[in-house]
Amino acid sequence: MEIEDLLMIPGPVHVHGRILRAMAKQMVGHRGKKFSEIMEYCVNGMKKVFGTTNDVYLISGSGTAGLEAAISSFSGVKRITCIDNGKFGDRLGKIASRYTQTDVVRFEWGKPVLLEEVEKSLAEGSEALAFVHNETSTAMLNLAEKIVKLAKEYDCLVIMDAITSAGGDTVKMDEWGVDVAITGSQKCLGIPPGLSAVAVSDKAWDYYNEKCPFYLDLAAYRKKAKDNQTPYTPAVSLFFALEESLKIIEEEGLENRIRRHRILSRAVRTWAEEAGLELFPEPNDVSVYSNTVTAIKIPEGIKDSELRGTLLKEYGITISGGQEHLKGKIFRIGTMGNVGKREVVATLAAIEDVLSRHVNIKPALHSAFDVLREL
Amino acid sequence: MEIEDLLMIPGPVHVHGRILRAMAKQMVGHRGKKFSEIMEYCVNGMKKVFGTTNDVYLISGSGTAGLEAAISSFSGVKRITCIDNGKFGDRLGKIASRYTQTDVVRFEWGKPVLLEEVEKSLAEGSEALAFVHNETSTAMLNLAEKIVKLAKEYDCLVIMDAITSAGGDTVKMDEWGVDVAITGSQKCLGIPPGLSAVAVSDKAWDYYNEKCPFYLDLAAYRKKAKDNQTPYTPAVSLFFALEESLKIIEEEGLENRIRRHRILSRAVRTWAEEAGLELFPEPNDVSVYSNTVTAIKIPEGIKDSELRGTLLKEYGITISGGQEHLKGKIFRIGTMGNVGKREVVATLAAIEDVLSRHVNIKPALHSAFDVLREL
Repeated sequence: MEIEDLLMIPGPVHVHGRILRAMAKQMVGHRGKKFSEIMEYCVNGMKKVFGTTNDVYLISGSGTAGLEAAISSFSGVKRITCIDNGKFGDRLGKIASRYTQTDVVRFEWGKPVLLEEVEKSLAEGSEALAFVHNETSTAMLNLAEKIVKLAKEYDCLVIMDAITSAGGDTVKMDEWGVDVAITGSQKCLGIPPGLSAVAVSDKAWDYYNEKCPFYLDLAAYRKKAKDNQTPYTPAVSLFFALEESLKIIEEEGLENRIRRHRILSRAVRTWAEEAGLELFPEPNDVSVYSNTVTAIKIPEGIKDSELRGTLLKEYGITISGGQEHLKGKIFRIGTMGNVGKREVVATLAAIEDVLSRHVNIKPALHSAFDVLREL
Repeated sequence: MEIEDLLMIPGPVHVHGRILRAMAKQMVGHRGKKFSEIMEYCVNGMKKVFGTTNDVYLISGSGTAGLEAAISSFSGVKRITCIDNGKFGDRLGKIASRYTQTDVVRFEWGKPVLLEEVEKSLAEGSEALAFVHNETSTAMLNLAEKIVKLAKEYDCLVIMDAITSAGGDTVKMDEWGVDVAITGSQKCLGIPPGLSAVAVSDKAWDYYNEKCPFYLDLAAYRKKAKDNQTPYTPAVSLFFALEESLKIIEEEGLENRIRRHRILSRAVRTWAEEAGLELFPEPNDVSVYSNTVTAIKIPEGIKDSELRGTLLKEYGITISGGQEHLKGKIFRIGTMGNVGKREVVATLAAIEDVLSRHVNIKPALHSAFDVLREL
């Protein structure tokens, strides 16, 4: 029998059947009333997810497209500071440097952000700060409230990559003072990849740069948003999916959803520690364990390919390895979107089975049950 | 009863049930073997559609994203000439001017391309020529063979927007000498919007400009293409859809598919003329009637909103109006993708019904039947 896939990576995630069925709906005209109504519903739903009353623009493209739309459209700043403590922080710097003077404040991947280092860069004359809220490459959550507070002391425009936090962890754009926030469809929103959302404050437009890419020019999105349309043909099926996802979020309640994500990831961490495995991140008071993904060091005695290969072959479960120089050193388990206890216990049990063939680990599933009972 | 939509616009098009069901498949890992196999199949299929042995890159974004990827990645030219005889020709110029010196050769929308005007611009030192193969805003096909031949006399890099021709009309990239060709998913390929394809010759890389947008940088796509992967998370569901579409194309045969598109659009034109309506385009020996969309002048006695509104309300059929200054002056019928006789006769009959309430037109469906019998 061909096993159906179960994706437990930090995106793209396993997609709920209701959302898959929504994707199979026949096209509607993208300039007609039906589409505009869907778009209006999606925009309003995304405002709640971002915790904002700002405009939200929906871009047909991956999260990276959304990031570049945000950074390039508001690159009319003299200098931008980008925080890099992982692969996606690194990406912010790579994008920003195509458009304006960029200073990247680097921390070793897995190490926490040190605010004093960020402050040094801001003090050298930055007008903007960009950072990743939840860094999936290392499974760390960079606490936005503290970072934004510092940026505001320097009157900086704040751009936050919320690609793997929005919809799965607390995002309070307006309360925190974030000017631009970005997310992607295939993470905590639980829909297939191909759609990104960018929330934009009024202040951001003071730094609008018309030399941004044509396709990613948020001024064009703003103009069409008034009629609940997009400037270029939208990925209609993914809008159907987002509509269904937002209905699911409304039914569960955003707060309950965030609580579920926290409990699922805590169950994974608790299991790992009980089993004698070592978590990869080294948190401090600014960077903490992620609530949507967990990174664990691969123990001595088993290779990455043995672990992940057997898991996929025997159980049909895909988890992630490490990226770049972390390849072969860590594995990562996503707990994002519309997954629950069943998917998490299946994943942990399967990993325990495969690891125990090569490594002396302690059976630890009961420690996960204890946490999951809180759900 | 809520009527199901039938889109007869020049994209997004009505989607075949097989393709809709493919969209509803569960996610697979975008870095795994299953996805790579799908991508390989899609790339090989798209090479046939483009008539090329060149590389083909698949970008998650609308056709405009594909266009900008092509133009910006190869904007290392001193000067580019863009032919504009419609909205999408105009767009080429708007994109190109963000990246390099651009000369737009303008013809009134609906008027044909005059090669002597193009030649004047090329002679002023252009190193590249960009043009739209099939211009949907005016329903004209600009004959690529003649335009490319001229461009080659000036040793120009040739970029062709084949968004609404590839898969529905003859595209022979290699035979004609086109260097870069672009298409979109929601047109003749018959899948939902959100995916574009760019075919690239070796010569194009001589003009690579690393200052293109990060998300649209074709060098990043080229690097990952070797492993049948994409640099950023691909819109996996749309790859499922493209795979199914290419299977349908293989079953029908590309030549038969093109023949079907030609007959369907000829049936629409024949009906229109028999009914006493006036076609909008004014063809010559370079710009001819499109084989994938037909533009017809709105006759005196009925308003655009009455025609298209009633069609949608009573029949659930969406056709297009005119764009920009052609709004209210023309209506357009797409005959793209996986539609056949049934959809075309339903559309023409419905239009005849609505028009005949306001305008004295001759019943003309029999003239369409005559053409459609060739299928």
